[in-house]
Parts: sequence; C-alpha cells; structure tokens
Amino acid sequence: MPQQVSISTQQKIISLCKRRGFVFPGSEIYGGLANTYDFGPLGVLMIRNIKNSWWETFVTKRSDMYGMDTSILMSPKVWEASGHTKSFSDVLIDCKECKTRTRADHLIENYLEKDGLKHDVEGKSLEELEKLINENRIVCPNCGKFNWTKPRTFNLLFETHIGIVPENQSLAYLRGEIAQGMFVNFANVVDTMRPKLPFGIAQSGKAFRNEITLGNFIFRTLEFNLAEFEYFIDPRYNWEDFFNYWKVEMKKWIMSFGVPEEKLRWREHTPEERAHYSKMTMDLEYEYSFGFKEMFGLAYRTDYDLKNHIEKSGANLYYVDPTTSEKLIPHVIEPTFGINRVFLTLLENAYCEEDERIVLKLDKKVAPYRAAVFPLVRNKPDLVEKARDIFNNLISQGFSCAWDDRGNIGKRYLSQDEIGTPSCITVDYQTLEDGTVTIRDRDTTEQKRIKIENIHELI
Amino acid sequence: MPQQVSISTQQKIISLCKRRGFVFPGSEIYGGLANTYDFGPLGVLMIRNIKNSWWETFVTKRSDMYGMDTSILMSPKVWEASGHTKSFSDVLIDCKECKTRTRADHLIENYLEKDGLKHDVEGKSLEELEKLINENRIVCPNCGKFNWTKPRTFNLLFETHIGIVPENQSLAYLRGEIAQGMFVNFANVVDTMRPKLPFGIAQSGKAFRNEITLGNFIFRTLEFNLAEFEYFIDPRYNWEDFFNYWKVEMKKWIMSFGVPEEKLRWREHTPEERAHYSKMTMDLEYEYSFGFKEMFGLAYRTDYDLKNHIEKSGANLYYVDPTTSEKLIPHVIEPTFGINRVFLTLLENAYCEEDERIVLKLDKKVAPYRAAVFPLVRNKPDLVEKARDIFNNLISQGFSCAWDDRGNIGKRYLSQDEIGTPSCITVDYQTLEDGTVTIRDRDTTEQKRIKIENIHELI
Repeated sequence: MPQQVSISTQQKIISLCKRRGFVFPGSEIYGGLANTYDFGPLGVLMIRNIKNSWWETFVTKRSDMYGMDTSILMSPKVWEASGHTKSFSDVLIDCKECKTRTRADHLIENYLEKDGLKHDVEGKSLEELEKLINENRIVCPNCGKFNWTKPRTFNLLFETHIGIVPENQSLAYLRGEIAQGMFVNFANVVDTMRPKLPFGIAQSGKAFRNEITLGNFIFRTLEFNLAEFEYFIDPRYNWEDFFNYWKVEMKKWIMSFGVPEEKLRWREHTPEERAHYSKMTMDLEYEYSFGFKEMFGLAYRTDYDLKNHIEKSGANLYYVDPTTSEKLIPHVIEPTFGINRVFLTLLENAYCEEDERIVLKLDKKVAPYRAAVFPLVRNKPDLVEKARDIFNNLISQGFSCAWDDRGNIGKRYLSQDEIGTPSCITVDYQTLEDGTVTIRDRDTTEQKRIKIENIHELI
Repeated sequence: MPQQVSISTQQKIISLCKRRGFVFPGSEIYGGLANTYDFGPLGVLMIRNIKNSWWETFVTKRSDMYGMDTSILMSPKVWEASGHTKSFSDVLIDCKECKTRTRADHLIENYLEKDGLKHDVEGKSLEELEKLINENRIVCPNCGKFNWTKPRTFNLLFETHIGIVPENQSLAYLRGEIAQGMFVNFANVVDTMRPKLPFGIAQSGKAFRNEITLGNFIFRTLEFNLAEFEYFIDPRYNWEDFFNYWKVEMKKWIMSFGVPEEKLRWREHTPEERAHYSKMTMDLEYEYSFGFKEMFGLAYRTDYDLKNHIEKSGANLYYVDPTTSEKLIPHVIEPTFGINRVFLTLLENAYCEEDERIVLKLDKKVAPYRAAVFPLVRNKPDLVEKARDIFNNLISQGFSCAWDDRGNIGKRYLSQDEIGTPSCITVDYQTLEDGTVTIRDRDTTEQKRIKIENIHELI
C-alpha cells in the first residue's frame, strides 16, 4: 500500500521539522492559528538559501530581468482592475449536520481519486459542482452524512482597513498574488531602466489567501512565499516559443537541487480550470508524499493585465518599439515559483532512512549548515580551542556552520545527518600535531584526513 | 538657513529615487495609496544588500544567534498577552474647521521645535496633551484655525478576518512588531537548539502599523522592513553590561557603511515615552535632512514578554540553568533596526553634488551595482562582444552589474555616479590588443588601465 507509506513519510517530516527546528506550527502556545507556520532556526537558513538561489539564477545572472519589491498593501482599485475582487474565489459547501465547511472541488476530487478516476473539476460552475456531488452522493468526510448546503462562492482576498477612525476607514486588501505590484509599475520600470523586449520584472515576497485549506503541512497556508516574474514579449512574436523556453528553465532550476525528473510532470489546465487572466496555464507538479501536486505555475497572461490597467487607470502602459516607434502592449509569460513548496519538495526529496540513520540528502546549496565542527572531546581545552578557531574562521567567511561538543562523535554524526549537514569536521589529537582534521561526508559516511587550509574548498 | 537646504535635499533624493528606479510611490497609477512605496529595480538591489549585511553580521557570523522567520498573521491571543491590543496606540486630534487629523504629540513637537524648545511630549496623558495644545494655543497646521476636538487614543494594529464566511470569521491582526513571533517560539528554539545564556533569536521581516503619518518619504510607512533580535540574558547578571555591548555593536554596523559618528546620537526615552514593555529604551538617531530622528531602537524589555506569555498561555517558557538546574525567566535586551530607515540614511549620507555631477557615494557593500561595463562605442561588434563577455562573466559570478552602450562615455559615467556604481569598466580598441580595460573610480573619478583578469579583485 504505497499510499500508507507516503502518508507516514509526511508525518515523519513534520515531526523532524518540529524536533530539529525547521518548521513550527504558528502561535502554537496559544493553541495555534490554523494553516500558519513559523520557520525555525534551521528552516530559515534553508528557505533563505532557496530564495537566494532563485534571485541569483533568475535576476542577478540574467541581463533581461529587473527586480522589484512592492507593497503588500495596494489600492483596492488595483484589485478591481485585475479582476480579483470578482473572480478570485473558491466554491465552498457546508455540511448541515456537523457544520464542516470544505471546498466543493476538493470534496469531489478526493472522492473521485479514491476510485482512481480522473479529476478535472476545478473551474466548474456552481451548478455543475452541485450536480456532481448529488449524482455521486458524496458524503461529508467528517460525519459521513449526506446533507449539504448549496455550494457558494467566496473571495480569497483578505480585507483590512487603512486609517484608524472607523467612519474614515478605507478598505484595502492583502495582496493575493505578487504579480499586480509589477504590472502597475510597468511604466516606472520602462522609464527608469529603458529595457528592450523581451524582458522580465521579477519579485519575491509574501502573498495571502483566505482559503479553507486541507492541511498537508506547509503546502497550502494563509500566507506564503512566492517568487515570480512577468516576462514581457513582443505580441507580434510567437508566445509559445517563450512559454517553452521558460518551461525548460523552471524545470532546470528545481533539478539543480537534485530533484529527479521522474518526480516531476507538467499538467495543462483545462479551459474551465484556468484563472480568469490566462489563455494557457501549465503546472509543474512534484510527486509529494500526498500525490502529484502543483509546485510551480506557468501562465500566458496575454495583455490582459496591462490592458485592464490602461483602461481603468488611464495610465500610459505602452511600450514603444525603439526602431519602428510603434506603440505596443506587450504580452506576458508568467513563471510562478511556490517557494514554501520548493522547501517541502526538497525536504521530501532529501528524506532517507538507511542503516538506522535518518539522512536529509539536501544539496549543499540549500542545506541549513554547510558544515559542522566538533572537538573530539569537550574537556580538553586545546582541542576545543582549535576547533573553535576553525569554526570561527568558517562563520567569519559567511558559511553557516553548526558547533557540537555533546555526546560522542557517532551521535553527533547522526544528529547532523538528520538536518542535512554535508560535512562534519572533527578536531582530534593529531590535529594539534600535524594540522589535519577528519572530514566526514554525509551521504557516503566516508571519512578522510585533510589539512585545515583545505577545508574551505572542500565544503 | 540650514533647514531650507536640507528640505530641498530630501526633495532631490525623492526625485532621484523615482527617476532612477530606487523607490516609486505605491499604487501610483491609481492616484497612490498614501504612505506605501515600492522598491524599484535599483532599490531592491540596495535593500537586499542591507538585509544581507545585517543577517551576515548578526546571525551568520555569530555563534550565539538563532534566526527565525515567523508569520505575519498570529493568533489574536498573542497580541492580548503582549499588551498591544491595549497599549499600542497613538493619540489623534481633529481640526473641526478643516477636518485635518494629526497626531497630538507631533503637533506639539513641531510647534515647540520652531521655537527651539525641548520636546518630550511622547507618552504624555490625554489631559496633558490637551493642556499643552491649549496653553500654547497651537493652531491647525493646515488651515491656521484653533478649533480642535479632544485628543483620542487609537490602536495601531491593522485588523483582518480569517475564514471567508462572515458569521464565522475570526479577528486577526497584522503584526505591529516582529518581536512576538520570537517570544512565542522561545521554548521551540530552546528545545531544538539547546542554546546557553546569553543567546539571541533574530528575524528580519515586515511589520504593519495603521498610523497617521507625516510623510518624510519612506521614513514612516504603513508597512516596513524591520530586523531585530531578542537577546536573552541571565536575570542574575547585570543587564547594563549587555545593553552597553549592543549599543556599541549597533553603531559599529551602521558606521561600517561610512556613516560618520557626528551624524549619529543616542537619545534616552523619558519614562513617559517608553513603550509599555520597556524599562530602558534608547534610540540611535541619525541626522536626516528633516532633523535627528530614530533609526534604531534598543530596549531592555526585562522579562515582561516571557512572563506574560507564561501567564496567559500556560506554556513552559522557562530556561533551566544547565549547571544548577535552576528554572529562570531570562531577561531581554532588544536591538531593533529600521531597515527602510537604513536605506534612507545611506541615501542621504551618500548624496553629493560636486562639479556638475550628482554622486551617490554608497559603500560598495550596498550599492545596487558593483560595476558597470561599457563598450567604447556601440556600433563595433568586436568591442560589444568583448564587453558582453566581461559583463556576462561578472554576473555569472553573482555580481550585480549594469550594462550601458548609449551616448558617450562621459554621460555614462554621470549616469552611473548618480546611482552609486563604484566602478565603470570600459572596453576600447586597446582591449582587443592587450587585454586591458579602463576602470574608473566613482569617488575620485580616476581612471586606470588594468588587466581583464584583475577586474574581479578590484571591484
């Protein structure tokens, strides 16, 4: 029963995350706040490494990409123009017996999945969803009864109010996606940077969705880290070429962390399932312990957003062809990367149990610590001092490193394996004589002696 | 009149920020959303450099600091326990004539400042503030009339609701400070990392305050980037020693970017002015174009937060002394760094007008681009190709670099000076012969020829 094995893998990862300081449930001491999580001391190092790798790959190392960091709070007019106040919603249904509230599409999907059936219910109308539930007599997953309300539509944007005196407050939304901050700044970027088509505007930041979620740890949460870019192309060119180019680059990036191709698949959205702005959407799915699910999205947004903002704001969001002086509205290819989902992907992909040890075989680019440094024993001041020197030297060069002087070396290795530290460096008596240390590899468990001067290049 | 000179400096910086892609007003094409700003392509590079320097200095390079990244949305119980739902507020007053709403303390401060008088009005009671306004007959700064409402208190926490069906929604706040995420995770960090006192928990992230703000560009905004740590100390030790240690370290960090000591001063809060949790607070102020204002804060929060959370949540937030097994509630020293304010400080500090050029003399650690690369002329393919090689080589090593092939070299230098690029590298005919380029220094404007292989170490 592979299903049971993988569910237990998820439980093991959640437990490891809590036990070792990767991820804690949000507001835990107050009973928690559902679907919020906090990144702990190791988790924050890992997610910073992921974010930095993304920025370096898609912004720093490219000459056609311009970064931004736009506000979470934006004028409500932005969300009216983008269509989100109308179309950014989920369909919910309530059990009249036990009051369980759930997403109608997920209810149907989960039911069909059990029978091994196809599930393309996203984007179906209220009537179609109701019909599917009734035809299949899908019961409440909580109480087992069949007594539903009609499905209803609810908007996913969180609301807040700016201005602190009630009669004067103005409605604002927490951004439900990070794209709009880049679209409304299109003219600012063109005017200041004078880019030539094709070019991208990129950002990495938080988005918020008021969803009824179904758990799966950090897979779907109320607030989450996204990274994406709007890649503007000449509308006279073939959009498929750019779309296919980004399909390749997106997959290349996640595979650079050691994720194997067979755990990835592209899935095209059906016309009903696609977001209101998209003419073509594909998800890059990873095979999580709970099945193939969306990790990245790639959408052809056409000129939907710029056109709407031109219309609604009256602003000049055109691009002028530098050779022909033609005024164009560029079209947009949008690669979106769920950063929290990358975090989960890499943890699940790295998790191994072998020979009575748990190992996170994380790529060293993302492992929380690049190395751990140990004195062989803690009660020999000269060993401890030497080990401290090496440790301090590494962190002063900007390497995140662990220090451990508790228990025996074997236990320390197991402890570092579990958090994915690629190399363990031990200072022993021989170190004091010949300036060499033992370096032990996480994956092979092989140990060798190297000179202190060579540590830097080996880790 | 130094006051007029400096106000115009602020205007020049705002204009440069918009013109060159550092900072744009938020939601600008829809008429803006007051007191929100977006970091543009150059601003995001600079603020990332500031954040990374902070993290490297205070987390990576220290062995007593543990990072985190906690949720913006937290249980409302956290904010009740921390005292923010009660005490985190401003006193506002309305002009009955023109409806201008303003902070009462700022109204009085601005009035007293004009007369060169001292201003310690923060933290005064409603009655005291009203008395000061009446005694001095302070008129409305907008309409010049004297016809005020009584001062009233308003909470600064933004409210939102979780759950998308009105009757079922639960109130939540956007965090007004980032400290609480670390306090509520105290036991998680102690259990997973087993740190010894003294140690710190650090994070960098966004906070939100529903303030009536008085402009000054990005100095005070609705959402802003903070970086801070809670430094936990043994209550049996002298807190002043740690307090003074961090005073030195905080100043050292900002001075590492070239901010001169004479532009900095520590100011101690009066007992009335201090936040409800603090027994001693000092602000590190920078002399902005609009006067000495808070850039960093340093507070001795005692055991206020842990004690309250223990009491309200029932959780075990004690620390057990590893030698004596005594149960302690650690005390806290809290250094807080306003990251947007550092951004503004460094821009104001770097801004120079000299010899018909505008130069941002930014430290190279924070300048948006480390270098710019030019071909001498754009219509010679071999020059352009060679310059592209050098440019691509630098960005592939992770250096953010600018490319410019427009206009003449003199104009390109001026353009890079204005955005603070430390070095400009020009590829000319001689490059093709002997593999050397011209490198020009931003501050001295000196040019010298160096070998291509040496570019890396020089920038």
